[in-house]
Amino acid sequence: MSYGSVIAAISTPSRKGGVALIRISGEGAIEIADKVFKSKSNKPLYETSSRIQVYGDIIKDGVAIDDGMATVFRSPASYTGEDTVEISCHGGMLISARVLEAVLLAGASLAEKGEFTQRAFINGKLSLTDAEAIGNLLEAKNDGQIKLAAGGAREKLFLATNEIRKELTTLLASIFARIDYPDEDLGEFTNDESLAYLERVRKKVADLIATYPTSKAINEGIATVITGKTNVGKSTLYNALLGEEAAIVTDIEGTTRDILSSEITLGNVMLRLSDTAGVRNKEKADAVEKIGIERSILALNSAELVIAVFDASREADKDDRELLSMLDGISSPKIALFNKSDLGHAFSEKLGGFDAVAEISAKEDGAVARRTISDIVNRLFVDEKLKIGEDAILTSARQNAALISALEYIDAAISAIKSGEFTDAAASEIELALGKISELDGRAVTEEVLSEIFSKFCVGK
Amino acid sequence: MSYGSVIAAISTPSRKGGVALIRISGEGAIEIADKVFKSKSNKPLYETSSRIQVYGDIIKDGVAIDDGMATVFRSPASYTGEDTVEISCHGGMLISARVLEAVLLAGASLAEKGEFTQRAFINGKLSLTDAEAIGNLLEAKNDGQIKLAAGGAREKLFLATNEIRKELTTLLASIFARIDYPDEDLGEFTNDESLAYLERVRKKVADLIATYPTSKAINEGIATVITGKTNVGKSTLYNALLGEEAAIVTDIEGTTRDILSSEITLGNVMLRLSDTAGVRNKEKADAVEKIGIERSILALNSAELVIAVFDASREADKDDRELLSMLDGISSPKIALFNKSDLGHAFSEKLGGFDAVAEISAKEDGAVARRTISDIVNRLFVDEKLKIGEDAILTSARQNAALISALEYIDAAISAIKSGEFTDAAASEIELALGKISELDGRAVTEEVLSEIFSKFCVGK
Repeated sequence: MSYGSVIAAISTPSRKGGVALIRISGEGAIEIADKVFKSKSNKPLYETSSRIQVYGDIIKDGVAIDDGMATVFRSPASYTGEDTVEISCHGGMLISARVLEAVLLAGASLAEKGEFTQRAFINGKLSLTDAEAIGNLLEAKNDGQIKLAAGGAREKLFLATNEIRKELTTLLASIFARIDYPDEDLGEFTNDESLAYLERVRKKVADLIATYPTSKAINEGIATVITGKTNVGKSTLYNALLGEEAAIVTDIEGTTRDILSSEITLGNVMLRLSDTAGVRNKEKADAVEKIGIERSILALNSAELVIAVFDASREADKDDRELLSMLDGISSPKIALFNKSDLGHAFSEKLGGFDAVAEISAKEDGAVARRTISDIVNRLFVDEKLKIGEDAILTSARQNAALISALEYIDAAISAIKSGEFTDAAASEIELALGKISELDGRAVTEEVLSEIFSKFCVGK
Repeated sequence: MSYGSVIAAISTPSRKGGVALIRISGEGAIEIADKVFKSKSNKPLYETSSRIQVYGDIIKDGVAIDDGMATVFRSPASYTGEDTVEISCHGGMLISARVLEAVLLAGASLAEKGEFTQRAFINGKLSLTDAEAIGNLLEAKNDGQIKLAAGGAREKLFLATNEIRKELTTLLASIFARIDYPDEDLGEFTNDESLAYLERVRKKVADLIATYPTSKAINEGIATVITGKTNVGKSTLYNALLGEEAAIVTDIEGTTRDILSSEITLGNVMLRLSDTAGVRNKEKADAVEKIGIERSILALNSAELVIAVFDASREADKDDRELLSMLDGISSPKIALFNKSDLGHAFSEKLGGFDAVAEISAKEDGAVARRTISDIVNRLFVDEKLKIGEDAILTSARQNAALISALEYIDAAISAIKSGEFTDAAASEIELALGKISELDGRAVTEEVLSEIFSKFCVGK
C-alpha cells in the first residue's frame, strides 16, 4: 500500500439499501471528489467548510447520474487522519457502483480491505488494539462482544498498555543510567527497589493476560459438544438454549439460521456447538460401533466444554456408564445435566469429575433450563471480577501472545536482577519485553501482522 | 402512518459493512437523537448547527456502545422536509441494530417501508414521479435505468407535467369565465382558439404517452423468448448475449447469476429471457409432442419479443417449417437470426412477417452477434428521437395509465367543443383530465396508490 495516495471504496454494505456511502481518502481526495460532485450552490468542495454536508449532483462522463450529499473532512480531523470526502448517494447496487467508478475515473484507486482503518492506524488515529476491537465490533453477534469493542473499553486497554510501557521505560532508563555512570549513583532505583518495581509491572501484565479467557469466551466462543444417549432430550435442550436468540436472529435480515443455530449466546458467553457427538448405539454392528465411539472420543477431546445429558427419571444403563467412562479421560470443563427432572430422580450412578451438575427440565421449563446452564457457563468461563465494557480486557489471541512473551522477558529480567546480574542482562530482557508491548498496541509490528489484521476487514472500512 | 411522529430506521443495507446510517425524522427527532448521541464536545444536538457532522458516543442503557458521527438537518432543509438526524456508526449488523434499538427506546417508532420518501412526498420535497424514479434507481441494473431515474430527467418530467396542468387550468378558467358571464366576453379564447389550444395540449400528452414504450423497454424489460430447433446454436447465442454483462455481474457482490442470466441489457433495452420455448422434437411420442407444441405456442404468445434462430448453413427442414408456421400467428415483434453464417447460406425457405432478419455467427464472433441483435432490439423498442436522461419520459405504468385517461378526457372535451357544447360538457371533461394529471405527479392520489408505490421501497428509504 502506498500511503497518501487517494483511495476510495463503498463503505456501506454491498446490497440494495436506502443510502450508500463512498469514502475517498488521501492527499488530493478533495480535488478528486470535486471532479465528481457539483454542489447545488456551485461552490467547489475545496472551498467548502469541513464537516458540512452539502447537497449536489454526482457526475460521471459529464452527466449527472445521481444526486446526494458530500462532506469534506480535512487532515488530521478525519477517520484516516488524511483529507477525506464522503459522498452519499442512493443505495442501489448499480448506482453506487457507478458513483464509485466515477471517483476511480477521477483518479482514486480502489481501497484494499481495511485500508481506511490501516491508514488511521498508520496516522496515529487509533492503536492496533483499537483496530482489532473495531474488527470485532463489525462481526459482533452478541452484546458482550459489543461491550468489549466499545470505545470506553478500547480506551482502558490503551491506557493500561501505555502505563506498562511507561513503567518499563522508566526502569530501563534507570538501569541504563547505572550502566553508563556506575559510580555516580544516578539510577533512580536500588536493586531491591527495581525488583519490587518490576514485580508490580509483572502483576499488571499478568492481570491483563488473565482477562483473555473471558474475552475469548465472549468473542470467539467456547467449542461445545452436547452429548448423551438417545432420548435423553438433547434436541429439546438445544431448542431451549436457542431460546430468545432465535427470535433475535429473525430480526436481523440475512443472518442465516445455520450460523446462529450453532452459535448460542448465554449471558456473556458464546457457545459454538459442534455436531452432537454420537454415543454408543446398540442397534449397530460392532465394527461400526467402534468407529462411532472413536469419533465421539475425538469430538469430545477437541471440545472446550462438554455438556453431558442424562435422563434423571431413569436408572443409569450401560450406555450412560459407557458415556461416563468415555468422559473420564476428558480434561476440558464438563457439565452434567439431569434432564426430565420433573419426572423424578431415579438415576443413582455416581458422577465424578464434573465441573458442575444440575437438574433441568428442558421440555417443561426451557427458560429455567437455559438460565441454569447460562449461570454455570458464565461462572466457568467469565471472570466475574471483570467489568465487561469498563475494564481493560485483551481482545485478540495476538495481544495475548504478545503479553505472554512480555511476561517471559519480565520474568527473565527478574531472575537476572535476583541473581545479581542487574545491569546488562536485565536491561536487554526489559528491552525485549518493551518490544512485545509495542507489538501489542502496534507501535512496533511487522508488515505481515498488519496485513493479517486488516485483511479481515471488508473493503470500505 | 402518522406524519410528524418521529420515525427511525437503518438506511444502509442490512449486511456487514464499514458504516451503517441510522436516519431519524419527525417533530422531536433532534431531542430523541440527543438522548442517544453525546458529542465529544458535550454540546447537545439541539444546539448543534445544521448539516455539521459531529463526533461522539452512542449511548444505550447509559453505556457507550459505539462511537460515530451525527448530523442534524432542520426542517424544511432535509430529505423528508422534517427535522432529521442521521447517525452513522460502525457497520456491524448487531451493533447497527443496537443503535437503532437505542433510538427506538428513546421514543422513535420504526419506519415503515419507504416512509422517509413518503414523508418527503407529503411535505412537497419531491413529486410522486420523483419517488417512482428513485424507486427505479434503487433497483437499477443497467445504465439506461440510471439515466431515466437521474435528477435531470425527473425534473424534465415534472416540468412537462406542470406545463400541461397549467395550460389545462388556463383553458378551464377561460371556459368558466364564459359560463359565469356569458354576455361579457370575458373568456380568453374563442371557440376555435380553445380548440386549437386544447389540441396543442393533447399533442403534449400524446407525446409523453409515446415515451412510455421506450421507458418500459429500459426499466421493465421485454419478455423475450429465444426459439429454434435443437443444434441451431441457441446456447451459444445466449452466451454471446450475456457477453460483458456477465463480467459486470461478478463485480457486484451478491447479484445472483440467476437473475442476471435471465435479464440481459443490450444498449438501452433489457431483455427478460424466459425459458427457451421447446420446438417440436421428433424423438418423442405423438401425445407428448402435442403438449410440447402447445406449451411452445403459449410461451410464444405471451412473449413481447420472439427471437427465432435458424441454421443458415443447412436447408430448412420439417422442424424449421413447423416453427415458421407456429410463428405465423404471433403478433409480437419477431426477429429471425440465421446463425452459423460463417459456414455459408444454404437455407432457402422464404421468411415472412419478421420485423428484422440478420445473419450472425454466435460461435465465431459473439461480440458482433451481440451488437447486431442489440441494434435491432434498440431500433424496435427505443424511440431514437428521445434523449434518454434528458427528455421528459414516463417511468411507470401508473403514470402511463393516468395520461391515457387524461388523453381520453381531452378527446371528449375536443368532441364537446366541436359539437358546439362548448361550456359545461367541455369544462367537466377538462376537469377530469386535470384530475388525472394530478394523479400523475401525486397532487391528487389515493392512499392505496401511495401505499402501493412506497411499499416497494425498502425500510430506511
